[in-house]
Amino acid sequence: MNAHLIDLRSDTVTRPSAEMLAAMTSAPVGDDVYGEDPTVNALEEHVAGLLGHEAGLFTVTGSLANMLGVRALVPRGGEVLCEASAHIVRAELGSHAAFAGVTTRTWSAPAGQIDLEQIRTLIAPDLGPYFVITSAVSVENTHNFGGGSIQHSFDALADELDASGLPLHLDGARLWNAAVATGRTVASYGVRAAAASVCLSKGLGAPVGSVLVGSTELIREARVWRKRLGAGWRQAGVLAAAGLYAVEHNVERLAEDHANAQAIATVLADAAPGSVKPDQVETNIVVVDLAGTGHTVPEVVAGARDAGVLVGGVGATQLRIVTHLDASAADCRTAAEVLARIIAG
Amino acid sequence: MNAHLIDLRSDTVTRPSAEMLAAMTSAPVGDDVYGEDPTVNALEEHVAGLLGHEAGLFTVTGSLANMLGVRALVPRGGEVLCEASAHIVRAELGSHAAFAGVTTRTWSAPAGQIDLEQIRTLIAPDLGPYFVITSAVSVENTHNFGGGSIQHSFDALADELDASGLPLHLDGARLWNAAVATGRTVASYGVRAAAASVCLSKGLGAPVGSVLVGSTELIREARVWRKRLGAGWRQAGVLAAAGLYAVEHNVERLAEDHANAQAIATVLADAAPGSVKPDQVETNIVVVDLAGTGHTVPEVVAGARDAGVLVGGVGATQLRIVTHLDASAADCRTAAEVLARIIAG
Amino acid sequence: MNAHLIDLRSDTVTRPSAEMLAAMTSAPVGDDVYGEDPTVNALEEHVAGLLGHEAGLFTVTGSLANMLGVRALVPRGGEVLCEASAHIVRAELGSHAAFAGVTTRTWSAPAGQIDLEQIRTLIAPDLGPYFVITSAVSVENTHNFGGGSIQHSFDALADELDASGLPLHLDGARLWNAAVATGRTVASYGVRAAAASVCLSKGLGAPVGSVLVGSTELIREARVWRKRLGAGWRQAGVLAAAGLYAVEHNVERLAEDHANAQAIATVLADAAPGSVKPDQVETNIVVVDLAGTGHTVPEVVAGARDAGVLVGGVGATQLRIVTHLDASAADCRTAAEVLARIIAG
Amino acid sequence: MNAHLIDLRSDTVTRPSAEMLAAMTSAPVGDDVYGEDPTVNALEEHVAGLLGHEAGLFTVTGSLANMLGVRALVPRGGEVLCEASAHIVRAELGSHAAFAGVTTRTWSAPAGQIDLEQIRTLIAPDLGPYFVITSAVSVENTHNFGGGSIQHSFDALADELDASGLPLHLDGARLWNAAVATGRTVASYGVRAAAASVCLSKGLGAPVGSVLVGSTELIREARVWRKRLGAGWRQAGVLAAAGLYAVEHNVERLAEDHANAQAIATVLADAAPGSVKPDQVETNIVVVDLAGTGHTVPEVVAGARDAGVLVGGVGATQLRIVTHLDASAADCRTAAEVLARIIAG
Repeated sequence: MNAHLIDLRSDTVTRPSAEMLAAMTSAPVGDDVYGEDPTVNALEEHVAGLLGHEAGLFTVTGSLANMLGVRALVPRGGEVLCEASAHIVRAELGSHAAFAGVTTRTWSAPAGQIDLEQIRTLIAPDLGPYFVITSAVSVENTHNFGGGSIQHSFDALADELDASGLPLHLDGARLWNAAVATGRTVASYGVRAAAASVCLSKGLGAPVGSVLVGSTELIREARVWRKRLGAGWRQAGVLAAAGLYAVEHNVERLAEDHANAQAIATVLADAAPGSVKPDQVETNIVVVDLAGTGHTVPEVVAGARDAGVLVGGVGATQLRIVTHLDASAADCRTAAEVLARIIAG
Repeated sequence: MNAHLIDLRSDTVTRPSAEMLAAMTSAPVGDDVYGEDPTVNALEEHVAGLLGHEAGLFTVTGSLANMLGVRALVPRGGEVLCEASAHIVRAELGSHAAFAGVTTRTWSAPAGQIDLEQIRTLIAPDLGPYFVITSAVSVENTHNFGGGSIQHSFDALADELDASGLPLHLDGARLWNAAVATGRTVASYGVRAAAASVCLSKGLGAPVGSVLVGSTELIREARVWRKRLGAGWRQAGVLAAAGLYAVEHNVERLAEDHANAQAIATVLADAAPGSVKPDQVETNIVVVDLAGTGHTVPEVVAGARDAGVLVGGVGATQLRIVTHLDASAADCRTAAEVLARIIAG
Repeated sequence: MNAHLIDLRSDTVTRPSAEMLAAMTSAPVGDDVYGEDPTVNALEEHVAGLLGHEAGLFTVTGSLANMLGVRALVPRGGEVLCEASAHIVRAELGSHAAFAGVTTRTWSAPAGQIDLEQIRTLIAPDLGPYFVITSAVSVENTHNFGGGSIQHSFDALADELDASGLPLHLDGARLWNAAVATGRTVASYGVRAAAASVCLSKGLGAPVGSVLVGSTELIREARVWRKRLGAGWRQAGVLAAAGLYAVEHNVERLAEDHANAQAIATVLADAAPGSVKPDQVETNIVVVDLAGTGHTVPEVVAGARDAGVLVGGVGATQLRIVTHLDASAADCRTAAEVLARIIAG
Repeated sequence: MNAHLIDLRSDTVTRPSAEMLAAMTSAPVGDDVYGEDPTVNALEEHVAGLLGHEAGLFTVTGSLANMLGVRALVPRGGEVLCEASAHIVRAELGSHAAFAGVTTRTWSAPAGQIDLEQIRTLIAPDLGPYFVITSAVSVENTHNFGGGSIQHSFDALADELDASGLPLHLDGARLWNAAVATGRTVASYGVRAAAASVCLSKGLGAPVGSVLVGSTELIREARVWRKRLGAGWRQAGVLAAAGLYAVEHNVERLAEDHANAQAIATVLADAAPGSVKPDQVETNIVVVDLAGTGHTVPEVVAGARDAGVLVGGVGATQLRIVTHLDASAADCRTAAEVLARIIAG
């Protein structure tokens, strides 16, 4: 890919920095299938600690961490509830059903928010062995297809679930962003969930990997299922070193990505009023609605690409812009101007 | 079970009549695994014809017919949309996920109705191999947990799906009731669906069985999966004969069940205003909300049982009453009085 | 199908007798999903007792009883061992893998026999969470594709498994034949297994159904999975009555089927020496090897059908003849003569 | 782990060399989920070419490559045949059954060899939709639990399968060893298979990863299922670079590992005659049978560890020693002496 392109399609496109690569090449490694990779062990322990959990499991993707987490909380034929545009039901190719046999019902809410009233109605109690039972509620925070939104009723939901004894699953692929934007610790979210995943390869910039956290017993079992799924890697310490570096160096700087996203949103809202609501841009994702602009998604995506800016379409009339550590403030300004020119044109 | 009890828990509790038993014992039978049971073949052909389809498959339950139908329309890892209280996501123990690997997202609507606006938002187009694709929409008509409600936007949804090329799955366990109540033919519903199931053992009174209908190719494949699921029975003609008898003799009389349900609803609405809305009782199911009555579900269920009337609880404050061919108008009057006395007490 | 045909393709082709039909129509029934069908309950209790087990579950097929039994003993991703021509790996369309996630390794032995030495080598101990663990051994007795053979090392295997703590699964679709032929009780086999299935619709002549037996807990769980598989039927008492009648009236007479099979084998061994070994015909199945006769399977099957006799092919050069209660001694003599004439021709 | 230990438990324990790490840090990377990682693409293309196939897919493990390959060749409910100690049925935790719904039957042969006669008997033709059909035969070459043995009937089996139209699956985790030991190209094996996997992290010394090869269409579909399984990684080029380096630099040197294994075998055969047959040590694995030595597996494993040598147990009386690029000829001599002293003691 052309190195001069400004790629704002996703924060997954970042590449390891020189310092991160140096950390990777100097890390001690071992065979992680035998639990003998010291760097993997260090990463798992460190992230588990950050999130207030006993144990962690380094996985090749956030999707895998989510599937293992949901599987641990929900028996085959049982149900997890989630928002209708959550990553686990939209972007994981049905894996929770296809491999874990977990069924889903969904609520729909603006920006993918928790809707306590709907959730209360959906929760299915144990009415005997003729009915599906709700075994967990899953929440994505920040919510990707909700535009990087922060879950504002997270604690309220956690309180209700605590009261009812129902476990919470947290898809925290971008939990770092939620924490930085709110000034909370990731632990303040993590401890409320029975299983949580966080991603190292999105805003944090590591090349590969996520971490699932939970109790020692949950992680022990998830480790077996990770191997069963063909994802029990060997000298993964090379990658874990990148993850450790990312967690140690790239969390606080997410605030810059948030500022860059805000700046882009402001430019576009000026250029095409109504296409973006800057006050709804809470973290590093900007969703642009082209509906009133007279432009189509393919047209804007192609025009921006010709001008050296990559963005992606999500849905019929929506564009998604994601800021990250490989896009500087200047890059983001340039991208905003390019897009403003096209959309307003 | 005590023969003097009036059992209104479900229309599945009916028992074969003397005439039906006579039909069962005089039917020619053969080995259906080899396709050689003439009575099974006759039933499958007859019901397929009634619903406007090429072929039929006699299955041991409606749940099985639904699973085979959904599986035929939705690939592993693909998605079917349905209402959040639909039988397929509430009362089939997650089988579409656990065995067919099909994932679901749901909309919620009063009385389990089709909500075109929500459905339009939920339908996920093919955005490439990173996202779940909606492969079918499933509708239950009448809708069991919706209180036996008729789907009033059935044709409108079918029109939209036709336009988009998305197949419709019809859970027609009680489609007979919808047809009788609206004066439509079952075919007028059936032809709109790519796969539909109808039940013989609910209001129609056969002891066991449902029929899945669809194209010859869909049914040929469903037959193989029925066997794989361990449900390819042998001399099923004994049961098919009851089904044929039921379809020929017990459809029109569903109007009596509907009248009986209406009568019960009227009595209860008088006794405890607000607990039942008679104008929402469209077929043979009456849902009673005890919330404002000062009585709990277990209390009313127990009280009615002591008085010789069986009803069931659905949800925290709701009672369900189902009329059927083994409960006469007099039985239903008695039951209504028993319940009215308890609830108003 | 022509009523004058002598159908020896399988003992599944039998049809209910007048007496059996009478039992079916007079049986009290109820809704078995609620556990309220008294005839189903009586059948389950009776068969469980016969086999020396606590509880039983009436299932629509032997395949389903086997899948539920194997699933109860073997976790997802675990292994059951069986002979390579066992019904569970040859004739159940891979259901144990496709639905229960159970993997298999197999031994091969003449007549599908237990081979203790091979089994000892195959059993995989728990070497840690990197390896598949053997969770059960499954034995079919009598062995269908083994030619109705009796398992002569059944007790020896059971003893070894007892010693090692590994459970035995018994596919007893034709266990009645093994018991009658050896003079043993079915309980003497049944008590050695942690889960066992017996079939009512093969030699015993009921139209539909099998019974899975095991501990109360195993059956309770199997009942839930039966419903999840869409096979939790309603007024199944109609069929259970046939099963009860069959168990009470049609077991001892299996000796006639065995004598008829022996008679057929003798005729064919005379007509085409080497094609059948009468001393290997232990119950009601005769396997004829056409390899040395100069005739092909399709040719003999077609010729016999033209002469009013139905038999089936199994494998490239083998014919299978199965005697049963709808084929009299005279029928079997006729069939033997028809086949002898073709094969010797 | 102590760096002074000589670790001969597996060739998976190797760690990246300085040169390999340099290749990793200088490789261009991109987002492989979008197909944009140039190093991953280069690796996939290179390995596919080496094996005579159109396309390749870089996977996190050999188990995943095997599952995706088997799944591509065998439909849900279909069957793959393999040897009873093959990696796919022994060491992948039942994933082909648990996730792909594939059932297995097995033959047993010394050193995990192809046994044409047994395979011919096992292959199940299409007898109609009542029986399991064999969809593929899987062969592991070299065979891990067979002691690193080379498949000597590989071409003969491939010829037979070609004639019958049945596809061959090749588990080539250590195909590099087979090629080096026989002087054949890996392509000479690869082209005979419809799908083949090779491992980069065993003898070749890369930290993580395998490659599945096949037709463009097979790989396109496998890529979707890899994502569904949660294993569609992002900037995997860091690892792919190691794989490319390994394929380019570490194949020919496998001959040294083979010589070291032979040397170890010779020492142990001298020390404890009968425990090892050096002429059966064909590549880099030595299996030692302690049965006649008076020593147990745990005892020898512990004794060796105390002396700085790590080996593993496989089975009740067997020890496994694996040579690799992190164990020099001197290391192997030392290890052989340590073990000889214990075993002969």
